[in-house]
Amino acid sequence: MEWASPLVSGASHADCPARKVLDNVTSRWGVWVLIALRDGGRRFHELRNEIPGVSEKMLSSTLRALVRDGLLWREVEPTTPPKVTYGLTRLGEGTASPLADMFAWIRDNALDIRATQEEYDRS
Amino acid sequence: MEWASPLVSGASHADCPARKVLDNVTSRWGVWVLIALRDGGRRFHELRNEIPGVSEKMLSSTLRALVRDGLLWREVEPTTPPKVTYGLTRLGEGTASPLADMFAWIRDNALDIRATQEEYDRS
Repeated sequence: MEWASPLVSGASHADCPARKVLDNVTSRWGVWVLIALRDGGRRFHELRNEIPGVSEKMLSSTLRALVRDGLLWREVEPTTPPKVTYGLTRLGEGTASPLADMFAWIRDNALDIRATQEEYDRS
Repeated sequence: MEWASPLVSGASHADCPARKVLDNVTSRWGVWVLIALRDGGRRFHELRNEIPGVSEKMLSSTLRALVRDGLLWREVEPTTPPKVTYGLTRLGEGTASPLADMFAWIRDNALDIRATQEEYDRS
């Protein structure tokens, strides 16, 4: 019965990789990496500076997961130390675009959201 | 310097609530709740059945956060036991819609993603 629901039937079996990818995309830092890279490729340390609160370790593992999923490209220039740049692939652009729309919607409604939160906390 | 970046300047101060909301929306279960509710209001146990792997406790706290943000409405019918139904508000619909677009994009590209993952794991 459970498995006949629209959500589950749309998300199981062949879509298993899609679910895992969605988890990576919507991971704590994945969202910010994808949104940041919409402006163009970034070096590792640039991303780290642009995303407040991310540690080097978490940024590394987030980038690795998104590269593995094919949403980001990674380019290494053989300098000393090597320059590593990340950017959105076609797949990544198609993912980051609705994500940025969603963030813009939330941001544009920030005042309404704050009012609702305050009302909720008072009740 | 760090705070002059476009991502940070777009996400700080007045946008603080927006960042927190985005974290709630993209929480492990928030994504699935919002996508499931696009088909219409759901009772608590229906959501629990439709979202594989979610515990009662996690579902409760996810729903509470999204109600507090104003993305979901919650209706309690005074029966015994009470019937509790959740659905998307206008704010929630505007959030769930790009989220569903993103999931559809990922799902439509699942084969490409899987191929990239296999190549990555071989190298």
